Order: sequence, then structure tokens, then C-alpha cells
Amino acid sequence: MIVTSVDSFDIRFPTSRELDGSDAMNPDPDYSAAYVVLRTDDGHEGHGFTFTIGRGNDVCRAAIDALAPLVIGRDLDDLGEFGRRLTHDSQFRWLGPEKGVMHLAAAAIVNAAWDLTATATGVPVWRYLSALDPQQLVDLVDWRYLTDALTPDEALDLLKASLPGRTERAAHLERVGYPAYTTSAGWLGYDDAKLARLAQEAVDAGYTQIKLKVGADLADDIRRFALTRSVVGPDVRIAVDANQRWDVGDAIAWMTALAPYDPWWIEEPTSPDDVLGHAAVRRALATAGPGGRPIRVATGEHVANRVMFKQLLQAEAVDVVQLDACRVAGVTENVAILLLAARFGVPVCPHAGGVGLCELVQHLSMFDYVAVSGSLDDRVIEYVDHLHEHFVDPVVISRGAYLAPRAPGFSARMHADSLARYAFPDGAAWR
Amino acid sequence: MIVTSVDSFDIRFPTSRELDGSDAMNPDPDYSAAYVVLRTDDGHEGHGFTFTIGRGNDVCRAAIDALAPLVIGRDLDDLGEFGRRLTHDSQFRWLGPEKGVMHLAAAAIVNAAWDLTATATGVPVWRYLSALDPQQLVDLVDWRYLTDALTPDEALDLLKASLPGRTERAAHLERVGYPAYTTSAGWLGYDDAKLARLAQEAVDAGYTQIKLKVGADLADDIRRFALTRSVVGPDVRIAVDANQRWDVGDAIAWMTALAPYDPWWIEEPTSPDDVLGHAAVRRALATAGPGGRPIRVATGEHVANRVMFKQLLQAEAVDVVQLDACRVAGVTENVAILLLAARFGVPVCPHAGGVGLCELVQHLSMFDYVAVSGSLDDRVIEYVDHLHEHFVDPVVISRGAYLAPRAPGFSARMHADSLARYAFPDGAAWR
Repeated sequence: MIVTSVDSFDIRFPTSRELDGSDAMNPDPDYSAAYVVLRTDDGHEGHGFTFTIGRGNDVCRAAIDALAPLVIGRDLDDLGEFGRRLTHDSQFRWLGPEKGVMHLAAAAIVNAAWDLTATATGVPVWRYLSALDPQQLVDLVDWRYLTDALTPDEALDLLKASLPGRTERAAHLERVGYPAYTTSAGWLGYDDAKLARLAQEAVDAGYTQIKLKVGADLADDIRRFALTRSVVGPDVRIAVDANQRWDVGDAIAWMTALAPYDPWWIEEPTSPDDVLGHAAVRRALATAGPGGRPIRVATGEHVANRVMFKQLLQAEAVDVVQLDACRVAGVTENVAILLLAARFGVPVCPHAGGVGLCELVQHLSMFDYVAVSGSLDDRVIEYVDHLHEHFVDPVVISRGAYLAPRAPGFSARMHADSLARYAFPDGAAWR
Repeated sequence: MIVTSVDSFDIRFPTSRELDGSDAMNPDPDYSAAYVVLRTDDGHEGHGFTFTIGRGNDVCRAAIDALAPLVIGRDLDDLGEFGRRLTHDSQFRWLGPEKGVMHLAAAAIVNAAWDLTATATGVPVWRYLSALDPQQLVDLVDWRYLTDALTPDEALDLLKASLPGRTERAAHLERVGYPAYTTSAGWLGYDDAKLARLAQEAVDAGYTQIKLKVGADLADDIRRFALTRSVVGPDVRIAVDANQRWDVGDAIAWMTALAPYDPWWIEEPTSPDDVLGHAAVRRALATAGPGGRPIRVATGEHVANRVMFKQLLQAEAVDVVQLDACRVAGVTENVAILLLAARFGVPVCPHAGGVGLCELVQHLSMFDYVAVSGSLDDRVIEYVDHLHEHFVDPVVISRGAYLAPRAPGFSARMHADSLARYAFPDGAAWR
């Protein structure tokens, strides 16, 4: 299979009109995708994208177009090499390395390559990954900069250790699904009545964890948290998410004030670049919850690459790794991040929502359960109930769990109608 | 002064044809600038740019064009607010935050705004900055994410403490200049004879520090280092630069092998994102030099933003801060980085070379000496003797020192001829 074309699309949804997705740092996002269709000479196609929140989606598209010549005319036989081709080009690498717009663009192309490969093989991506043997998985990873924390041999041992039970765990996923939590109740732009109603609906729907946005105003956060706790009761986990709003000292003070309501984790307390800052917050909150329980620290949706995740783990800065399907260089770099998390024994709870992130990350978590960590303990995939109608194979949630995808590929394809209607700036939704 | 236009240009020099600038990670750079001309309603113009090494310069230009609407129609009265306007827009921020292509683009626009402001005032940027009072300097900084390491009040105290002697230090710069070191001898693509000849020329020209590129082949590096040491003698400092080629363990082993030749610093031993990795390398090399002297650790040209510099300092990971004029969001963010370095007592030795980086960073180091650190100890500005002929106010080097610029502005303006000839892909140099 030789790549013959890489077509890009600037797709934007006017979500800011309803304050869906509003938080302390992102008051008016227009959820968007820089979308890629990869085609090969034997007639296959793969779809992929990166996620943005509006302005700048065109810059990601320009970056995709700039990277395209690196893969056109090349084969897809080795997806590890395919990913490294996009991140190792020395001239493009100068623009990162491995971060920002160029890395988002690489994610879109890499994800499309995985969609194409799994589709051509006739299986969903999580099944495709879970069928690879340990050496094949190790060979996918770009090991540069990782070996002080995890060597290829150590990763091989880890993967071999989880070979037993792959079949049973895959069967469990097809029978029961993978646990989810919902953020749909807690957007900052929603009023108290809507918050209370949505929190009750979440519990009724079977969720055992929900998430609230915090960080704009402490009095509001206390009121909203108290209200939500009173609705859901003491046994439902409530995570909170500050979306990078605070400095280290602010994060500790604010979370200490929210501690009586028993937050399960604090997500993005400060800059996603601040490994040492997260470590300081985590130490300060280690016994800050009711009864001396920890308030966990979570981050990842803006963590630029595997080198930053490595350090968050080395520094014991996080209790929860929130990988993102489109922030790092796609499926391939996420295999590295899953291996690092497993090496350090830290659960992965992916970031989702946005446009199509739920569709993508379910494959990564299911692969993690089947073939890497082998565990569901304290692992949940974020779920947000927006924009799934635009996808050909949308996620299916039942009783607070993601049901295992059965369609071939990465669940990444949008309907042609949606691609046309939400094309920016000329689609009907924007005219 | 209201901004009326932001014009962008894709300027590339075909430097790869001569292997100028070749190193272990960048074998064939075409030194390039995504160049900006900012104009105001009262007829002033400012020039600025970010530096890239070829492919992707067009993506930076697209990012500049995307950011331009944030500043068109706004004034330049508050350059701190001007910088934050470019980095705080929530939708664009998603693409970083504060890293990669969007941050390079912000650098170009911010640098142009400083060139314009200093030009309109009739002074060079280093003089303009050095004339601001401590509170004005503090107000320039985006303090978000810094306060666990340095508060505005602490910065104010630090700046007040260096008020005495500003005049004398500025006079010293105008009389003697600021110390330089040269990288022109040591590009990896040069053969031994050229290396030896250029090293001798550097010593003859008055340089007391030179730099060699390393990291592709250990035997070659030992031979080249031994040759260079034999040419320059024991008293000239020889720094080496691996351009991120190594993992942590490789860096320690390789530098231990080079230690007998007395390396002054090892620059970019590993990923610029790897704060903890740099700290590990620094610890391992603390007594590795001849006589138990340290091999210093230096990095910065690819350090994405002030949050990463903060951590390199907090973790005691670097002996030398190599700020870059165009990697972070221009002059304004570099004021923050100079303050952080001063707070931790670490010397700043800027990255230069490329296209016009020497022209820009001299202003930052001279401001540091006059108004921030007040010191020249172990401080040197990199110098590379390429591409200065394209600038209207090129740097002037004399006896191994940068002479203080006297022309108004940021020394950032290229000749109109150069902008036309090297425009990519339609200029004469590329046709």
C-alpha cells in the first residue's frame, strides 16, 4: 500500500453559541478538527484528525499540507517508521521539537494511517493493536529520550507479562465495556439548575464519576461543588478540572478550600509544562481530602509529548495520566505513553470530548486493558455527549461504560454531509 | 500609535549547499526567517522575525497571518499587554500553549513591536529597556506560572538592587563591548583542515571561547576535539554542542569520553523538554572534567517558554541559560527569563547564529548587564559569521566582543534587496 494522497479539511462546529465546552481558560471554544483523508494506490482510505477549539485550525491544516510530501509515495508497512518520518525531519523538527502545531498535524496524519491499516485489515484499531506481539509493539515506539525511564527490553518484559489473559480481557470488553465518566454536567457556562439536573441524569444513567469545571471564581466553585455533592451523594466520585488556570500556590489554596466536598482528582491545576509544579501540588494535597485521603493530580490533554509524560511519572507528579489521541503524534506515540504509565503503575484515564476524541481514545484504553496494563482499577474514559452524530461509527455508551467498537478502523470517520456543512469558512453552518 | 498592518514574508537562505550550520541533528539546514513588518497609523514601521531552518517556514508565516487580527487596530502603549494579547487568546492557546509554531509566530510579531517602539523613540532596544524603571520592567512580564519561583515583588527588589551602576555599565558596553564566543569553526560538516584553520583564526581574532558540534560519531568527536585543543592551547574555553542527539545515559558516557580535553560546557545533551534529564546529566558531570572540575550543562535554544526555563533553574539542571530571541514570545518573555536567571544566579549566554539572531540577542544581553544581573562573569554571546550582510544594522565584532549597537531599533531589519532575492519560493535565489 503506497500513499498516493493526503487531503486536509478545516472543519469547525459553532459550539461557542451554547457555551458547551466552556471552562475557566476556554470561555468560547468552537470545537474543530483539522481533518485528513489518506489514500493508497490499492484503493484504501484512512481518516484522521487533530482537535482544536477554533482559531488556528487553518494553521494546523497548513502544517498537515506541509508534512504531506514526507509520506506521499511511501508505504504503510511499518507504522513506527511512518510516525518517526513525520517527527524526525530535521527542518520541521526545528519548529517543535515534537510539540505545538507540527505535532498536532503529525497526529492527524498518523491517526489516519492507523485508521487505514486497521480498516484494510478488517478490525477495529483496539483489536489490531491487541493482536500485535510484544516485539511488534516495542518496535512501534520512538525510544529516543525514554531509555533513562524505560528501555525497550523492559517494555518487552512488561508486555510479555501481560500476554496471559488477553483473550479473556477482550471478551470482557465486548461483554461489559470500559468504564466511563461524564463531563457533560459540569461546564462552567451552565447555571445551577442545569448543573443539578445534568448531575442527577448522570447518576441515573449509571455513571459513578462525574467532573466539574472550576477555577474562575472560588465562591462559585464551592457553591456548585456543594450542590453537586448534595445531588449525587457521597459515593459518586467528583473530579474537578481547572484547565491550567492557577499558579502552584493558587492551586494548593483553592483545592484546600474545595477539599471538604471530597474531590477525586484535580485536573490541570497549572501549566501542562510544569512537571515540578504538578509534583509540588501533588505533595501538598496528598492528605488534604476528608479523612486524610489524597486529592489526586491529573493532567495530560496539553502534555506535549512522551518526554513530558516521562518526567511527570519520574517526578511522581501525577496520579492519573490523561493521554490525548491528537495532542501527541497519534496512536504510535500513545503506545509509548501507555508503556510508560504501566512501568510506573499509574492509571491512564484519557482526555476525551471535543470532536471525536471519545471515538479515538476508547481504542487506546481498550488496548491498554487487553495488552499493556491489564487492569481496569481506577481507570475511566472521559465521556462528553456532544457531536457524536457527525461520526459514521459513533461511540456507544451503556450504563456508564463504552461498549467495545466492532467496526473496522479507528471510529474516526465523519459523515460526508458533516464535512461539507461544517467546512470553515464556506460550509452552510458558517455562511 | 495604532497598528494598521502586519505583513509577513517567507525568507530562506540556501545554506545547506555549503554545510554551514550542520550538526548532529540538523544535517542540511536552510536558514530562514518568517519575517514581519508592522506598521502604525503615524507612519512608523517595525521589523521582526522568527528563525527556522527551512521547511515549515511557510507554516510560521501562516501562523503570523492568523495572529495578525489580534493586534491590528490596537495600540502599542503597553508592550506587556501586547505580548499577552498574542499568547492568551484561548482558541490559539489550545495549539500550544506557548510553544511550537504559534509561539514562534508570536515572537516575530512581538519583536517587530519592540523594533518599532525603540525606533520611534530613537534608541536601540538595549538602551530602551535599560531606561525603564524597575516597576515598568516588572509590568512587562506575564507572571502566570512563575510565582512559585519568583514573585513580582522579588523581581522588583532584584531590579532595584541593580539600579546603581546602570550608567557606568552602559558606558562600559559602548567602550569595550560584550564578550563573544564563536561557533564558526566547529560545524560538523567541515573537514579537519578547515576546522584547524578556523580555530586558529578564532584565537587570532581575540576569542577566548569557541564551540564544536559533537554527537554524530564518538571517534570523530575525540579526534576533532583533540585537534582543536592542540591548536588553541589549554586556556581557550572549548564548549561542545550535541544538539539534542543523546539519551541521558548516552550523554553521560559520551561526555565522560570527551572529558580529558576539558570541555567548558555541553550544550543540548538531550531533549530540550527533559528538565529532569538535564539535571541527571549535570549531576553526573559535576566533577567529570580534568582535576575534578565540572563539565557545565547548557541549553535553551529549543526551550519552549518561561515555564520550562523556570524548571531548569528550580531543578538545578543547567549552569548556563541560553535564551533565544525568537523561540519564546520575543523581547517581553525574554525579560522574564533574564529575571529568572538572575534570581537563581545562573549566567545567560544567548543562542545566536542562524539568521539575525546575533543582531537580536546582543540587545538582550546588554540589557541584562546594564539593568538585571549587572554582571559579565562567565557570560558570552554566541557569534556565527553568516548572513550578516543582509541586515541594515549588522552586528560589529571587535577583538572577540560585540560592540554596542547605536542605531535605533532592534537591529532586525533586512535590506529590501535581500527580502526580494531570498523570498521563497519565487525569489531569484530559489528560481
